[in-house]
Amino acid sequence: MINIGIIGCGTVGLNVIKILQKQRNNIINKIGCNINIKWVCDKDSSRLRAANLPKEKLTDDLKKVILDPEVDIIIELIGGTDTSKNIIIDALNHNKHIVTANKAVLSKYWDKIFSLALQKKLSVYFEASVGAGIPVIQSLNEGLVTNRIQSIIGILNGTTNFILTKMTDENMNFNQALKLAQKSGFAEANPALDINGSDTAHKLSILASIAYSNHLPFENIYREGISNINPIDIKYAKKEFGYVLKLLAIVKNDNNEISASVYPTFISDEHPLATVENEYNAIYIHGDSAGDIMFYGKGAGGPAAASGVTSDIVCLARNIFYRTAGKFSYVSYNTKLNLNMKPIEKTESKYYLRFTTVDKQGVLAKISGILSENSVSISACFQEQRHKKQSVPIFILTHKAKEGNIRKALKTIDSLSIIKSKTVMLRILES
Amino acid sequence: MINIGIIGCGTVGLNVIKILQKQRNNIINKIGCNINIKWVCDKDSSRLRAANLPKEKLTDDLKKVILDPEVDIIIELIGGTDTSKNIIIDALNHNKHIVTANKAVLSKYWDKIFSLALQKKLSVYFEASVGAGIPVIQSLNEGLVTNRIQSIIGILNGTTNFILTKMTDENMNFNQALKLAQKSGFAEANPALDINGSDTAHKLSILASIAYSNHLPFENIYREGISNINPIDIKYAKKEFGYVLKLLAIVKNDNNEISASVYPTFISDEHPLATVENEYNAIYIHGDSAGDIMFYGKGAGGPAAASGVTSDIVCLARNIFYRTAGKFSYVSYNTKLNLNMKPIEKTESKYYLRFTTVDKQGVLAKISGILSENSVSISACFQEQRHKKQSVPIFILTHKAKEGNIRKALKTIDSLSIIKSKTVMLRILES
Repeated sequence: MINIGIIGCGTVGLNVIKILQKQRNNIINKIGCNINIKWVCDKDSSRLRAANLPKEKLTDDLKKVILDPEVDIIIELIGGTDTSKNIIIDALNHNKHIVTANKAVLSKYWDKIFSLALQKKLSVYFEASVGAGIPVIQSLNEGLVTNRIQSIIGILNGTTNFILTKMTDENMNFNQALKLAQKSGFAEANPALDINGSDTAHKLSILASIAYSNHLPFENIYREGISNINPIDIKYAKKEFGYVLKLLAIVKNDNNEISASVYPTFISDEHPLATVENEYNAIYIHGDSAGDIMFYGKGAGGPAAASGVTSDIVCLARNIFYRTAGKFSYVSYNTKLNLNMKPIEKTESKYYLRFTTVDKQGVLAKISGILSENSVSISACFQEQRHKKQSVPIFILTHKAKEGNIRKALKTIDSLSIIKSKTVMLRILES
Repeated sequence: MINIGIIGCGTVGLNVIKILQKQRNNIINKIGCNINIKWVCDKDSSRLRAANLPKEKLTDDLKKVILDPEVDIIIELIGGTDTSKNIIIDALNHNKHIVTANKAVLSKYWDKIFSLALQKKLSVYFEASVGAGIPVIQSLNEGLVTNRIQSIIGILNGTTNFILTKMTDENMNFNQALKLAQKSGFAEANPALDINGSDTAHKLSILASIAYSNHLPFENIYREGISNINPIDIKYAKKEFGYVLKLLAIVKNDNNEISASVYPTFISDEHPLATVENEYNAIYIHGDSAGDIMFYGKGAGGPAAASGVTSDIVCLARNIFYRTAGKFSYVSYNTKLNLNMKPIEKTESKYYLRFTTVDKQGVLAKISGILSENSVSISACFQEQRHKKQSVPIFILTHKAKEGNIRKALKTIDSLSIIKSKTVMLRILES
């Protein structure tokens, strides 16, 4: 019998308990031993009661769980960073294996957690931290282990994907779509970490750290959110070019220079990622041998996240039962490998630009001149007929250009008196 | 150092050698030990030479490899069933772990192979047997282990998917598309096992055997191939209903009754599987907790298959190095679990029917009457204007109906003198 202590009894915790009870016989059949929930710990007594377990298993005292010598695995499900980091470190120091669904803590304390786990010969599993029930962590870590990972492109946040889907399919603006997401349970009351790309970047940090065998910190990931997205651009790019806008996490390895970013990006509607709608997530990986591989599924929600957490628990419990747990590090971790980061200015992309200009002759010539001076070459251009409005939009698509060049060009252009408001710049994914 | 013996030096074998050489440092870094190719065995000396390895590693003598006490893992890459079964059994009896990419042998000898592996405390890994480099075997076996798998729907054969894609997108007929597939290297000279659904059924047998913890033999899978598909039906269903035709492998668990089939099936063009084109494969799994999960990637080709094979080798080598290999069975295997199979006649589906009838009044009434007598209810119907041709088509879509009923109805209808040729019946996937 393997004893576990669950810390944090919210939606995911309750679903973990439910699955372990429902699948009890299946688990015994598959791994040969029983998994016993010895403790459920939460500060909120109403959440504890919801667990519907015998009273002696419930506690609000963390120490009781972590210090219990009979507990083999600590399941950290409280979220956040600092308290959960202390729990994980404390539990490792008391020789407990760890399962966590917490992307923020791993993204921030990757080094600390995995070096201690390595030293203590303990395992830290974290399947549900990215893509909830999608088995992408194990796949990247083991199934694609012999591939040089050339790129990972992910739709990793259900909230923003839901909002962008509604803006695309139902012509909503950002605020309308956000409200619907909140009403439908796909966005929290304070959605800032989702909307500004931080949650996506935490997850990208984890995927990249696995792919490149060293910590790629959150701070090294360039981020733009979706709160400024104007439906005009979604509508226009869809109609004219068949583009769909997605908040993408992108990490690329160009000759051992790694670039990592999160920003709203146009993709062709024929790209497999274009069909990933609403709260769904997907991770599109290019390995040098396997080629393009995509993982798709629900990226959030209690049952889906609990599917990932319980698969980790079962895997670890089996390893503990057969005394193989911690004999080798689950995550390959090599601090000697320096990740050589490429700054955003040096990355290249195709760009979508929308200029808001005064309705005057010569404006297009001026703009295209400045783009050209900065080595940005135009692939498509559309200007509406002049119609004596106060301002008119000019749409430009560029060939591949350096981000540094486009930024310099836009800075010059936006300072001109013919420009009425800040130019919209969105990147286009090459497929 | 872990020693391996590769048996079969075709495209996959050569790519396995290439990857192990190219990724040597990466592998040592990840698992702490080196993987040494001790033997490459093939009957064809020109294939051996292509391996470009020192002469003393090359042999045409199977026994030399299997009997070598220094060899830890046998990599079986010769394909087929009986010879490869003998190699695997022989190698297990000589205490070698196994990696294989051979779906046919596993599908046929699942019981024999896994019961012997269990008894000998050895591991048999087979990631590349389904979907080549897509890590679906490990994901189903471990990542989704706490899910009750309600259905698996797969596009598992690149040849047939390539042919159907060309028939759909480029209006080719079956023979034209097959020739193009052969010319492009996506179909073998003798493509029978691909075209008739057998290869797909072998792979479904493996996926289902993992999902339901017992052998689901090839013979228990109902099969229809694609050689009789008429472009008329592809064109019509796409134009009128937005359907796309795919050769699907489907296993379902309805209240512990398992149905398993392979047949060409219409799916909505909005289903994630509809975007899987040409030689790509995908596996769409519904788990009770994880929800809908899809795995997508190249299902064939040397590098992609070798990605799967080498990930197995690395995993096994690491387990051998840390002395954890074979401590527990990789595949959960319980002969006491009886799979309760539901015969095809009892399964339910929506159906697409095309009748070829004489151009006479009352024909539609007659056909719909017989369908109704057999409890088959019509959801859509289209009959061209009568135009004094020798025969006219009538298209009918049905609501959900029992396969047994539809077969009975079609048998009666096809015996009528108003029917000019065998009625086309294709199933429609519910989404």
